[in-house]
Amino acid sequence: MIGEHSSKQYDHELETIRSKVLLMGGIVETQFLDAMTCFRIGNLERADRVIAEDDEVNQLEVALDDACSHLIVRRQPTANDLRTVMATIKVITDLERIGDEAAKIARTSKNLHGRGAVGVNHYEMVRTIATATSDMLHDALDAFARLDGKQALQLIAQDAVIDHEFRSIMRNLITFMMEDPRTISSALDTLWVAKAIERIGDHAKNIAEYVIYVVEGKDIRHSKQAHSIPDNPLP
Amino acid sequence: MIGEHSSKQYDHELETIRSKVLLMGGIVETQFLDAMTCFRIGNLERADRVIAEDDEVNQLEVALDDACSHLIVRRQPTANDLRTVMATIKVITDLERIGDEAAKIARTSKNLHGRGAVGVNHYEMVRTIATATSDMLHDALDAFARLDGKQALQLIAQDAVIDHEFRSIMRNLITFMMEDPRTISSALDTLWVAKAIERIGDHAKNIAEYVIYVVEGKDIRHSKQAHSIPDNPLP
Repeated sequence: MIGEHSSKQYDHELETIRSKVLLMGGIVETQFLDAMTCFRIGNLERADRVIAEDDEVNQLEVALDDACSHLIVRRQPTANDLRTVMATIKVITDLERIGDEAAKIARTSKNLHGRGAVGVNHYEMVRTIATATSDMLHDALDAFARLDGKQALQLIAQDAVIDHEFRSIMRNLITFMMEDPRTISSALDTLWVAKAIERIGDHAKNIAEYVIYVVEGKDIRHSKQAHSIPDNPLP
Repeated sequence: MIGEHSSKQYDHELETIRSKVLLMGGIVETQFLDAMTCFRIGNLERADRVIAEDDEVNQLEVALDDACSHLIVRRQPTANDLRTVMATIKVITDLERIGDEAAKIARTSKNLHGRGAVGVNHYEMVRTIATATSDMLHDALDAFARLDGKQALQLIAQDAVIDHEFRSIMRNLITFMMEDPRTISSALDTLWVAKAIERIGDHAKNIAEYVIYVVEGKDIRHSKQAHSIPDNPLP
């Protein structure tokens, strides 16, 4: 966070907020990975932990919004510092929603494994989208930590890949359900998990866009730039 | 917006932002109602209009975030004014997401009607959740316009009713799909529409929580208060 101010105390306050956002990011990233483990092997205890961690994430959201408000009042940030605070206020919301989606995956995993999954190799169906999304989230948090606009810009194109994979999962699951209606409940659980993963991808994309807003000083949300980037969107 | 400042120009700026938020709210409310009409009767032209309006909503989001940043720099708001600006920054995001969900409903309606709906009386399935959500959204925007904390507090309990209705729709659709696998595609389209409606309910609840934050000066998100309100949640 390179500001145009010169107060060490002010730098310290900005840095404290930033490190709390990164802490929150680390928690939701772990929540997501743990939730996917629950979905894969049905560890009910871990599922309950993912759901319980949501409280911690929610408390961090409220505390961080409060810290941003106080900073605005005390420091009256301008230019780059203000963009950082604005972006932080938005990123906090995305992180909290990622925590919500992870908790949903954990709850669905409990349902699925509690009932005994029938017919669908549920984890294999979502393996690709889960890996792509977990990488994207990790890279988005990394780009935020290092304020790396270039990395953030590359990430945005990944979201289209995730959306494409989601549609492919949906088509496959419809085929399964049609061939054997006994798979419908498990297939729907798998579909909700895929949808939650796809949402986490959306939130990771939002975070990347806010990084660009901080670094470049321009808002690329909803612009053509955000949707027409590399030739080869997956490495 | 009753501030503690005395500048008329400042009041005017706050009022301009507020009226633009209400304009944005009016647009997404209409988008949602129009999208539901498309789902009910399959008006493709109207569906395209709902999808196209999303651009306008996105532009308003960017412009309003920008206006809030400028206001923070120029006016250095404190106390009540700052809470209003913070809440506005959050509400803008929820409104934009409501526009996204409405566009999704419109796209799904095009699919469903383009293919010819089979076997499921799709609109009847979602009529109750659609009406409850549209009322909730309208009341949340109204509570924001009048900064009515009491109305906002009553609204929050409605979200649980919408979630409950969503789960009931899901159970019904699973039954349909199991009885007649030919209905699976239409049933899934209906499920996505129900899910989008349920999300719009979540966003309306968020807006109500931000109204309470402005009026009461406290953040009730994730608190017990937000989840344990009336005995009779539906009028």
